Amino acid sequence: MSELAEQLKSYRQRVEPALEKGLGEIAENAPPILRDAMHYGLLAPGKRLRPILVLMAAEATGGEVETALPAAVAVEMVHAYSLIHDDLPAMDDDDLRRGRPTVHKKFDEATAILAGDALLTGAFEILVRGYPPRTAAVCVLELSRGAGALGMVGGQVLDLAAEGRMPGQAVPNTLAGLEGIHRRKTGALFSASLLLGLAAAQAETMIQPQHLQALQKYSECFGLAFQITDDLLDVRSTAEQTGKRVGKDADRGKLTYPGLLGIEESLQRATDLVAQAVAALNPLGAAGQPLAMLARSLTDRNH
Amino acid sequence: MSELAEQLKSYRQRVEPALEKGLGEIAENAPPILRDAMHYGLLAPGKRLRPILVLMAAEATGGEVETALPAAVAVEMVHAYSLIHDDLPAMDDDDLRRGRPTVHKKFDEATAILAGDALLTGAFEILVRGYPPRTAAVCVLELSRGAGALGMVGGQVLDLAAEGRMPGQAVPNTLAGLEGIHRRKTGALFSASLLLGLAAAQAETMIQPQHLQALQKYSECFGLAFQITDDLLDVRSTAEQTGKRVGKDADRGKLTYPGLLGIEESLQRATDLVAQAVAALNPLGAAGQPLAMLARSLTDRNH
Repeated sequence: MSELAEQLKSYRQRVEPALEKGLGEIAENAPPILRDAMHYGLLAPGKRLRPILVLMAAEATGGEVETALPAAVAVEMVHAYSLIHDDLPAMDDDDLRRGRPTVHKKFDEATAILAGDALLTGAFEILVRGYPPRTAAVCVLELSRGAGALGMVGGQVLDLAAEGRMPGQAVPNTLAGLEGIHRRKTGALFSASLLLGLAAAQAETMIQPQHLQALQKYSECFGLAFQITDDLLDVRSTAEQTGKRVGKDADRGKLTYPGLLGIEESLQRATDLVAQAVAALNPLGAAGQPLAMLARSLTDRNH
Repeated sequence: MSELAEQLKSYRQRVEPALEKGLGEIAENAPPILRDAMHYGLLAPGKRLRPILVLMAAEATGGEVETALPAAVAVEMVHAYSLIHDDLPAMDDDDLRRGRPTVHKKFDEATAILAGDALLTGAFEILVRGYPPRTAAVCVLELSRGAGALGMVGGQVLDLAAEGRMPGQAVPNTLAGLEGIHRRKTGALFSASLLLGLAAAQAETMIQPQHLQALQKYSECFGLAFQITDDLLDVRSTAEQTGKRVGKDADRGKLTYPGLLGIEESLQRATDLVAQAVAALNPLGAAGQPLAMLARSLTDRNH
């Protein structure tokens, strides 16, 4: 197992029990079917990329994994809610997610909508329960901005619009249009993850501007590189490897990087963005190495 | 116009522009169709009962309307999101709300789901933007608990279960079962409204325990009385007065107060609860009068 793979595994071993514990805090006495659906959606097998970004950002800026765990849990709750809602029939209409039936297939649509709502609401509860007021307020602000109308939800609207499914909402069929979608749809929550890790780590001290700038630049490049490699994966991989339907982007005539730039140029662009992400980490010194390795791994993705 | 009606009108005149302003803060640069759907859902004609409870609680405990406005806006955003999601085909499947097409009829289902998500997310952003960290943290905690898996969302699950629409989730066909639904479904957000008003008002001082206890007891009785009179309204009124379909509770064989207790006993119970709500306000003295008038008005409701 590579050094990065071992690190990721070790982070996941911290994240998984924290997710269980966090869910207990917000839903232990909830109606059982709701708690079960939230658990099914949140604890589904996954890479835990966003909580790992939280933990890596905390460690890269002098903080502890333990301190950053509530922020990591909150971010994964928001990610899980977004997957549950995105999979609904009225949205992407997916039956399979991470190789298992989606929440609305396993339960039903009403339960899926409500489980998503409760995970989103609970994410904010986790933050105010997990941090002193000043830290909690920064985290709530960054998470709500990253997840809201100008962030992730706005990006999902633009993504549906680019498929021609939002009459009256146009998206230009250009690189700028495509990047505008992804900066919001996936990039904003990646950025929030890194900023939450920073904020959680600095509870007792001041946030250093050079740390903030480094993580902001890193997250911007990381997010776009992630999306390009995700698009490339859809073109090149098999359903077995990803656990979801493949080639569906092309089926829908969806705006993608390979569709717009071709496979070679897309790969080149991802490689350039990864180099920029790594360079942005310079001010963090050796503490930034895990984030650098993670960025480099994007261009080797096959799952 | 009665004294209460004039007061309510005056509160609404403070709330409406605050809702517009708050929506601008969280969605001004959002994709236009998303912003439009959020605006349509949030600024729909309404009684603004929850934000008015926030403002009344603030004034009843020595605070200012102006200070309490962000909390009032956040609560109404949560209420508006819950109506948008409740009206969806997979939930209550309503075409009409407050006399107008519901958000998914006016726009489409995907837009309605996302507009709801963005309003819920934005509510927390409004709180951290509107208050110093300590106040914001209290408000985020109370709002997330009131709106989440143990509060409003949990109540909606139980409500659907009582209609037999959640296989594996039973609700006893008793007064305790019915009150369990409504304490969560509507009561929890009423309680949060009053506690947010209290927290917002006390930014510079300490929250007094007798104020907290008074508002908690009031909100519990107010919430149940509200639900009983809502159920009675469904039985007795016409579609013209409420702007929504009438008699639909009975059509669905839904668990209601008049269904369980009969009309006369339901009305008596509401009257008793209103008296308890009013009595709970004693520690607030004259400052509690607007809340007392509001509670008394429940048993005169015809819209």
